[in-house]
Amino acid sequence: MEGFDESSHESFSKSRAAGNQRLTSPNESLLPDDRWKPCLRSRALVKGQSAGCMQQLSRALGALGGAEWAGFMALGLLTAVISFFMDLSVSKLLAAHQWLYTRLEGHMALQLLCWTLYPAALCAVASSFSQHICPHATGSGLPEIRALLAGVDMPHYLSLTNLFVKLLGLTCTLAAGSTLFLGKVGPFVHLSTMVGAYLKNLCSLIGDNKRDGAGGEMLVVAAAAGVASCFGAPVSGVLFSMEAMSSHFPLKDYIPCFFSAACGATTFRLLSSLEPLFKTHFPESPPFCPQEIILFAVLGVACGVVSCIYLSLHRWMLGFTKTNRVLIHMLTTEKALYSAALAFFLALLTFPHSVGQYMASKYTMKQLLTSLLDESQWSERRPNSSLAAQPTPWSEWAPPGCSVFVSLSCFLLMKLWMLVLVCTLPVPAGYFMPVFVYGAAIGRLVGEGVAYLSPNGDPSDPASTSLTPGGYALAGAAAFSGAATHTLSPALLALELTGQLTHAGPVLLATLLANAVARYGQRPSFYDNISLSKRLPHLPSLLRVFPG
Amino acid sequence: MEGFDESSHESFSKSRAAGNQRLTSPNESLLPDDRWKPCLRSRALVKGQSAGCMQQLSRALGALGGAEWAGFMALGLLTAVISFFMDLSVSKLLAAHQWLYTRLEGHMALQLLCWTLYPAALCAVASSFSQHICPHATGSGLPEIRALLAGVDMPHYLSLTNLFVKLLGLTCTLAAGSTLFLGKVGPFVHLSTMVGAYLKNLCSLIGDNKRDGAGGEMLVVAAAAGVASCFGAPVSGVLFSMEAMSSHFPLKDYIPCFFSAACGATTFRLLSSLEPLFKTHFPESPPFCPQEIILFAVLGVACGVVSCIYLSLHRWMLGFTKTNRVLIHMLTTEKALYSAALAFFLALLTFPHSVGQYMASKYTMKQLLTSLLDESQWSERRPNSSLAAQPTPWSEWAPPGCSVFVSLSCFLLMKLWMLVLVCTLPVPAGYFMPVFVYGAAIGRLVGEGVAYLSPNGDPSDPASTSLTPGGYALAGAAAFSGAATHTLSPALLALELTGQLTHAGPVLLATLLANAVARYGQRPSFYDNISLSKRLPHLPSLLRVFPG
Repeated sequence: MEGFDESSHESFSKSRAAGNQRLTSPNESLLPDDRWKPCLRSRALVKGQSAGCMQQLSRALGALGGAEWAGFMALGLLTAVISFFMDLSVSKLLAAHQWLYTRLEGHMALQLLCWTLYPAALCAVASSFSQHICPHATGSGLPEIRALLAGVDMPHYLSLTNLFVKLLGLTCTLAAGSTLFLGKVGPFVHLSTMVGAYLKNLCSLIGDNKRDGAGGEMLVVAAAAGVASCFGAPVSGVLFSMEAMSSHFPLKDYIPCFFSAACGATTFRLLSSLEPLFKTHFPESPPFCPQEIILFAVLGVACGVVSCIYLSLHRWMLGFTKTNRVLIHMLTTEKALYSAALAFFLALLTFPHSVGQYMASKYTMKQLLTSLLDESQWSERRPNSSLAAQPTPWSEWAPPGCSVFVSLSCFLLMKLWMLVLVCTLPVPAGYFMPVFVYGAAIGRLVGEGVAYLSPNGDPSDPASTSLTPGGYALAGAAAFSGAATHTLSPALLALELTGQLTHAGPVLLATLLANAVARYGQRPSFYDNISLSKRLPHLPSLLRVFPG
Repeated sequence: MEGFDESSHESFSKSRAAGNQRLTSPNESLLPDDRWKPCLRSRALVKGQSAGCMQQLSRALGALGGAEWAGFMALGLLTAVISFFMDLSVSKLLAAHQWLYTRLEGHMALQLLCWTLYPAALCAVASSFSQHICPHATGSGLPEIRALLAGVDMPHYLSLTNLFVKLLGLTCTLAAGSTLFLGKVGPFVHLSTMVGAYLKNLCSLIGDNKRDGAGGEMLVVAAAAGVASCFGAPVSGVLFSMEAMSSHFPLKDYIPCFFSAACGATTFRLLSSLEPLFKTHFPESPPFCPQEIILFAVLGVACGVVSCIYLSLHRWMLGFTKTNRVLIHMLTTEKALYSAALAFFLALLTFPHSVGQYMASKYTMKQLLTSLLDESQWSERRPNSSLAAQPTPWSEWAPPGCSVFVSLSCFLLMKLWMLVLVCTLPVPAGYFMPVFVYGAAIGRLVGEGVAYLSPNGDPSDPASTSLTPGGYALAGAAAFSGAATHTLSPALLALELTGQLTHAGPVLLATLLANAVARYGQRPSFYDNISLSKRLPHLPSLLRVFPG
């Protein structure tokens, strides 16, 4: 294991050179001369041949535009394959849990055990991985990547050990489902950067070493490919890499970013399905009345305000974990215990026979988002009507005897502090998707409220279609996640994830306004919070764009 | 007029200061004391009041985030309004021409006169405008804007005279229709930059002068807002401004660009219609078989190769206009005559009773693109079947006794040299949209061919839907225009213009491959050709991204 830990570009090449030396000089003295000479000769031959192959490969790749381009392509393909298999295993694990839970129907105590112990065990596994093998694998990894791209040297963050720990830990975290309410993007970008760092080494071995100075290029490209492969969304991947990663974007990275992101997204789509991840069926003509734009603007401002509350809570929580002695002790020595206990506590609260029934806790993260983006209007139907006969994709949001407004409000209130609490978990986890889903819930609540108050859309025009609350959910998701991370790419991500451009204008407007509110007064973003708390070297970020 | 001509930021403020001085010192001596004193006092009062108002306005705007943001918003709104009214007048002029032509049905000589003299007259007007009032208004303006953003001082290019001449000239050029086959984007970006330059002066008068150093910011934002307002496509506007305008994109311009582009695109959409400009109805599930991706890749490479031919012809033509004495004489002294003659010649060729019937010359630019992006398959139907009974949106492409393949090939062959020839016209004109439509025709030809050869799509799966040639047209449009301009934003523009994301992957793939082919060997792009020919200061452009 110790060989894996120190594997930045330089140390990797050094250890390789050392290995070669060991092969030729010290081992010879240990071996009898006659028996091993042919073997050694053949090894030397193989070495010479492989060097020749390398040269030929280098020439062939050079004719096609250089080893870098092969590297960018391989990066896209690899991340897409990793992303697909991770999704596959997570969905199998989630299905296994759901199957067990359904089989135990009628035995509430057993169901409670199944519901709580499963995520607790997974969390304990994920955090003990990171405690005992690589402590750098915890959290999102994005703030560290930002620091890396700013020129800080952190070889441990790109080590092979970290890659494997992060891969396994992230799978465990995601398999714990919506109980933990954690996502995939951040760690996946970290993973993709590690893959990128290894491919860079490979490229510099194969190809011409003239362009070796372009060190950061592969990491920027890897960030774009990571987001693109995670969602099958190439354009927002590139935009994310641009705005989250550096303060100046050199245009020479632009085409490599798009190339790698397109390879990754296309491969991911081909592996899973050609359709977008969260396909929506919003009405197309007209998608919304012009007057609704004001409502979308109000939603954007509201999302900005809520994101400010969330970010201050998050900042307070990060400070608390650094001052409270019990927490410091738990987070340094008893990571697995702490994770298991927190996951158990959260699972108790979200147990479908307790408060969980009012927060649609049976849904996975994906089902949550799909249901929130549903094109039909929930509040039209009575909660007690024939739901059992026709299971809708959002039936969990309307439990018997409870309005959708109550369940959405309960979800929003509970998940706000849960989101803050879960950020303290020492496991590899992303914080973007939860924020995205949370924003969708805010948008859905506003949309359902508006649709309830004006069930026929524009009252002056009886021919107009009714409102689409799903559109509000989409705008809310983009606006809230954009405000929390101080980025605009979630607007484009929302469009690419749903495969519909009908709500492009409102989504962009809401995201811009939410960003304006969240950045007002130069407040730090979510990633800035973590960077400040971890005392990472801080970028001159986008904070100063909005003059406070 | 002479006051208008010298109106860069500095000279504008200087002349304003000079005007104030003139008001107080030299004029006083000319006036009798008693009669004019109250007037002068009231003027001073007004001046004091207006200064107070300015301060108050400045404070109010400062509270809302500074005068810049108001300026960015105003820029978006203004360009959208200009774009809308320009589109409106162009469509009225085109409709008038079409009405007259239809009324003359049966009188071929009169029809010929109507068909040829109308564009010739419009062209003569447009070019005499630019010859006699402002010679800087000719052409696209984009290469000059690039040089401006690189720091070269060219005040004439942002003068108010230029704005009006360009506005009127561009309207005339566009009203000449598909005979000339010229577009709107380039000059419109130039227009929007001029508006931006004026708004910047206004902002620096109203607002705090602390941030005066950010000079290029407004111009970059204006480029984004120009593209966004031209098509109602915010995201590709920002991407275009990023990749076409500078070699390093500072992220502090990112949010202003998006803000202004969103304002412009939303206003444009609200004014015209909420739907995308070229709405398509491609089948959604599945949009294409996975095997088709190879065909899209081939299409991308083909578009790249054709773009290389087009660019070399264009380069040769630019050189020819600088060496041929007759042309030099015509283009310096007899611009109007040359323009009218060339337009007359092109109109003769595209006359619907001559070769024009095989190139769908009755269609306007917009109708051409709409018909090429049509979702149905043309080659299924017989050209002689009941076309007259059911007029399809593409009936002009299948004239009696002629296959669509013949008409598409004829269109491609004829328009290639026409496109090159028309670039010599000394009128304000854009060259992006023609290239986009030309690419769509390439894609349509490939798509129809593939659909004709395999009418049921994937032969192994009888349940699969048939091919969509419109998807190929879309990919071809993005790939060819991207290759000609060495940009990737046309891929996104194609998606935003059609409002469908179904073909996002293939379109991006084709554009990337076409770019790779077009940039191979560090060939200059369309804009580079013009910059080189005009000896404009040359940017370290994207040329060096693809190692040749």
